[in-house]
Amino acid sequence: MAQFLASELEALGAEVHQRPLGKQPGKEHLDLPPVVIARYGNDKNKRTILVYGHYDVQPALKEDGWATEPFDLTIDSKGRMYGRGSTDDKGPVLGWLNVIDAHKKAGVELPVNLLCCFEGMEEYGSEGLEEFIHSESKNLFKDADAVCISDNYWLGTEKPCLTYGLRGCNYYSVSVSGPAQDLHSGVFGGSAHEPMTDLVNVLSKLVDSQGNILVPGLMDLVEPVTEEEKSLYGKISYSMENLHESLGSETSIHPTKERTLMARWRYPSLSIHGIEGAYSAPGAKTVIPAKVIGKFSIRTVPNMESRDVNQLVFNYIKSEFAKLNSKNTLDVWLQHDGKWWVASPKHWNFSAASKAVKQVFGVEPDMTREGGSIPVTLTFEEATGKNVLLLPMGSSTDAAHSINEKLDRRNYIEGIKLLGAYLHYVAEEPIGA
Amino acid sequence: MAQFLASELEALGAEVHQRPLGKQPGKEHLDLPPVVIARYGNDKNKRTILVYGHYDVQPALKEDGWATEPFDLTIDSKGRMYGRGSTDDKGPVLGWLNVIDAHKKAGVELPVNLLCCFEGMEEYGSEGLEEFIHSESKNLFKDADAVCISDNYWLGTEKPCLTYGLRGCNYYSVSVSGPAQDLHSGVFGGSAHEPMTDLVNVLSKLVDSQGNILVPGLMDLVEPVTEEEKSLYGKISYSMENLHESLGSETSIHPTKERTLMARWRYPSLSIHGIEGAYSAPGAKTVIPAKVIGKFSIRTVPNMESRDVNQLVFNYIKSEFAKLNSKNTLDVWLQHDGKWWVASPKHWNFSAASKAVKQVFGVEPDMTREGGSIPVTLTFEEATGKNVLLLPMGSSTDAAHSINEKLDRRNYIEGIKLLGAYLHYVAEEPIGA
Repeated sequence: MAQFLASELEALGAEVHQRPLGKQPGKEHLDLPPVVIARYGNDKNKRTILVYGHYDVQPALKEDGWATEPFDLTIDSKGRMYGRGSTDDKGPVLGWLNVIDAHKKAGVELPVNLLCCFEGMEEYGSEGLEEFIHSESKNLFKDADAVCISDNYWLGTEKPCLTYGLRGCNYYSVSVSGPAQDLHSGVFGGSAHEPMTDLVNVLSKLVDSQGNILVPGLMDLVEPVTEEEKSLYGKISYSMENLHESLGSETSIHPTKERTLMARWRYPSLSIHGIEGAYSAPGAKTVIPAKVIGKFSIRTVPNMESRDVNQLVFNYIKSEFAKLNSKNTLDVWLQHDGKWWVASPKHWNFSAASKAVKQVFGVEPDMTREGGSIPVTLTFEEATGKNVLLLPMGSSTDAAHSINEKLDRRNYIEGIKLLGAYLHYVAEEPIGA
Repeated sequence: MAQFLASELEALGAEVHQRPLGKQPGKEHLDLPPVVIARYGNDKNKRTILVYGHYDVQPALKEDGWATEPFDLTIDSKGRMYGRGSTDDKGPVLGWLNVIDAHKKAGVELPVNLLCCFEGMEEYGSEGLEEFIHSESKNLFKDADAVCISDNYWLGTEKPCLTYGLRGCNYYSVSVSGPAQDLHSGVFGGSAHEPMTDLVNVLSKLVDSQGNILVPGLMDLVEPVTEEEKSLYGKISYSMENLHESLGSETSIHPTKERTLMARWRYPSLSIHGIEGAYSAPGAKTVIPAKVIGKFSIRTVPNMESRDVNQLVFNYIKSEFAKLNSKNTLDVWLQHDGKWWVASPKHWNFSAASKAVKQVFGVEPDMTREGGSIPVTLTFEEATGKNVLLLPMGSSTDAAHSINEKLDRRNYIEGIKLLGAYLHYVAEEPIGA
């Protein structure tokens, strides 16, 4: 795929390098797929826009339940283009190539220098990319004036959005261990402290059914919401029906759109993902697991610093466990963390994108955040020191990572126009705006 | 194995039938392994002892961690006979055949009629056997005067025991479901009720870290302990060191042997086994599971009736869930139940076994119960209406179901003598004792 992408970019006249990232950690016989770096235009008088995308996709097998062959692009009568990667992220990546191609065919000069960074390990945690971006910040990426990433989605299906914030994520493991091996619950039930009993008890103290995080002090780390900020949510094109549709149920916590969006973007949340080491298969097994590991994560927001969050979480869990008077052993640790990100939506990078949306779709875009993480966003911001814009092409119904992933033809065609128009408005924006 | 066993029994002069049990439910192309029925002696003036054992074993692969080939009997310098099935239950089954053989070789008539019932699906839930036993209760098994099962273990390694009670087991599933499919915790964390949060909360209300069952009313179903009964536990050859050795840790709940044995045999216990549908693999996954099913079981004792236990459990769980004010859906149901069993240890069947222990080992046996279930025990009692004795051959260190299963040569050789002596004392016991 890297080779194909490099060939296409070369055919368009870009200067292309495939940059190796070394071996895959833990699988040293495998080269990591290269980063495809393409430079189109090198005019000192033009702004340089650094564009990121990825050419790898999630796995897919027709047997998973796809209605069509996942690796054959299949377009239905409603213009839905089905195929793995259609929306995540091959469609948007191809969009940038289409923009160059369209300019060439129309005989219009591209108003900016385009610097593309397309990776092939995004779906596997962007292995090797963070180091690469940091090490090239003063070299390959030094003349970038702003960054644009098209790798997320509209909030709904009708209205485009620009995304200026992401939550971070601190992922924790908490283990409880006791006996040296799994025990028979008939023989030992009642006479030994059971790790699963203790773990379930500790996990039950983390969050309540209404989503309130019960870790003392944690909410004090959250930046207070201003009245001005509150007023932003009412304008967003989103409804409780949209939420219920994507849940496939009406099991929403909050009664209004505003509170829902704030819960998703503006406040932290805590989810319990599962338990490793306990019996997890269908059926019945009368085991007392010897060691169980609970997994939970906290989505973080400004101004929660990872270290502070960890300290509060560790202290709280240990003190709750101590209350149980169990002879079992508890341990809790951070598996990984990724910081939240919030950009200034008043930067010229966003103004240009906003004008492009108005031009192509005839509406003002919604200014959104996302509840999830796209770690490369923060990496680019930190490494280049420049404003990063998330400019999505696909819609909320595209089913990225699921079966029957698709990109609507309208989103694709208008999306190409959007990316092109964005580059023109970027070129027109006053310096320092 | 059935064929081998039948041939051996025929060679000893027994009248042998292999009785089919039909097809394996859900795998209709497979015949269930037959029950091997062997009758040795048919003298109306002798008592008839119905003997149960099983010729199937747990699966075993050397790669599981066995030090020796699991299906080659390997005897070490300490006389430990390693091999799958050595103690569970091929050794004891073979013991009955050795008893017949020894009598023949010594020219001594067997003082009872022996009626053997050896099955081949014990490790798979005795598929088909319960129906068979009930349907043959007035036919094949009608002249049984008592039942003897050698398929459990000594409490320790030195002192033989006779087992007169088993706990029952009610196994429950409790499911909580909400969204139509698994959700991304970044996108939906904080805005939807999470099934895992609710389930963990409900499970945490079932039992505390000290093993106390929190279901209101449940302990009221337990038969009160008499002072006389309390005094029985002190005499049992068992120690906290034995418990800690088998746990591989010192995570015991109770400070004394007496309270430990009562917790194991005399009181109910509740164990949480695991959760189906949540993330259970190593590593990290930021999923909000759509539907999770908690598994727990209650070991039951006299006089807990399954129906009463279910009602208390269902009502309590539903009322605890209602307190959460969650829009998710909870369901709770019984997966299976097996009743507790307590025999009279004053019956001649036990007296005979007790004398046999004294004869062979020179000590009075401990009268024990077990915390786990051996469902066929109750089935034989109910179907025949006769006293059932559990007369173990192996010791607590035999590692049935684990790697490196073994039977000590001493337990085997003395065990054969024990089974034989038991039959002689059975013949001598007065009628109606």
